[in-house]
Amino acid sequence: MAGLSVHSVLVTGANRGIGLGLVQHFLRMPKPPQWIFAGCRDPKGQRAQELQNLASKHPNIINIPLEVSDPASIKAAAAKVGEHLGGSGLNLLINNAGIAKLKSLDMETLEDMSEVYTTNTIGPLLMAQAFLPLLKKAAQGSPGSGLSCSKAAIINISSIAGSISSFFGWDMVQATSYRCSKAALNMLSKCQSLAYKEHGILCVALHPGWVQTDLGPPTTVDDSVQGMLKVLSTLSEKETGTFLDWEGNVIPW
Amino acid sequence: MAGLSVHSVLVTGANRGIGLGLVQHFLRMPKPPQWIFAGCRDPKGQRAQELQNLASKHPNIINIPLEVSDPASIKAAAAKVGEHLGGSGLNLLINNAGIAKLKSLDMETLEDMSEVYTTNTIGPLLMAQAFLPLLKKAAQGSPGSGLSCSKAAIINISSIAGSISSFFGWDMVQATSYRCSKAALNMLSKCQSLAYKEHGILCVALHPGWVQTDLGPPTTVDDSVQGMLKVLSTLSEKETGTFLDWEGNVIPW
Repeated sequence: MAGLSVHSVLVTGANRGIGLGLVQHFLRMPKPPQWIFAGCRDPKGQRAQELQNLASKHPNIINIPLEVSDPASIKAAAAKVGEHLGGSGLNLLINNAGIAKLKSLDMETLEDMSEVYTTNTIGPLLMAQAFLPLLKKAAQGSPGSGLSCSKAAIINISSIAGSISSFFGWDMVQATSYRCSKAALNMLSKCQSLAYKEHGILCVALHPGWVQTDLGPPTTVDDSVQGMLKVLSTLSEKETGTFLDWEGNVIPW
Repeated sequence: MAGLSVHSVLVTGANRGIGLGLVQHFLRMPKPPQWIFAGCRDPKGQRAQELQNLASKHPNIINIPLEVSDPASIKAAAAKVGEHLGGSGLNLLINNAGIAKLKSLDMETLEDMSEVYTTNTIGPLLMAQAFLPLLKKAAQGSPGSGLSCSKAAIINISSIAGSISSFFGWDMVQATSYRCSKAALNMLSKCQSLAYKEHGILCVALHPGWVQTDLGPPTTVDDSVQGMLKVLSTLSEKETGTFLDWEGNVIPW
């Protein structure tokens, strides 16, 4: 992680699981970010207790109320982050918030398909739009012409379940709504990488390993987050627009 | 097309473009289907004039009111098709209805992303669910153990714009909402191919060529439809779950 040195980072879905793990690992870095914006639906609620405790001890953590399926909430969050940053930009946007509904193909509904897509795919699109001015500012303020996570980057936490060619775990969980939303998120990551390259912003889709469930090989949140941060520290313009796992391996679409 | 011989077919979005072209080509086959169900939003409206004219001359065309983003409309259509078919099944479901909104990434909205996904991705999922009993019946009533379009098949009309690896035409049209919906439709096609194989139903995603716009090499509706029907006549269990173009070439995801 020697290579990853960010002034500011925003993590969505930061109150639990991988999101919380990312916040904790950023705090433990030799040179922690000056600003760690921790977005979650209800930062004052019961489900954000651990995040509140962390924030009370670490003044560089700013809890931000954020519902990624609500454009007004995203806009308010971007304004708040902008205020804290003063004139400086945001280096790293980690779109981690996501939901899953485990259903067989026959049981999928319009409502579930739509809800999962809104949070997992449209959310990251709207987040990137809203934070683009701050990401551009960070890119402009960084030396060098290459792309890197220390400069400006959008990291979309995807899943190997969104890979159409490596069809992992089908028999165990169909979860079509989730798979479709992640395949679309991978496409979005590619679109973002092409559109934002000229602004000096790196974009990748990242598979954190199977951590939230009991499926597949056991990867702990700690291992996953540590691995992902190591991968982030190595990314350059060669990797923008790709789909990687938490160990840095390229995953086929 | 010698190999394609279907008793019944349902085409969505049948009032114009590729959908209408498919209906016309089915009529011209040496052995036309006994039932051609032509689904469109408003079969009695001005925009379905050509389809009405065709239906008045060909009693094997049945116009069906169908809004693929509305579960109630789909359910009513499935009931109506079932009535016409009496005890027999539906061989071929062609999910052709789709919409596109051509916008730059910065101009995409939650509403457009959601609307395009609902029609292009959720629609084909709901259609397959509703027509599954009729497709199963067709598969059960056909001899042989292999898969084919003459037996029972779901054809999802996708687009090379939904291929994350072959990123065609980015500079000309970004259309992120469309690309994401088609990448997700490709994933859905894969999911359907796995779930419905045991029922004897073949499922593919099919790129019709660039026909509706002035982008890229000029493919006429006629050439596209003729090519696609030729491809359909050759499909077997080897191809289920793949992404093909109108000339039969495999497109990478």
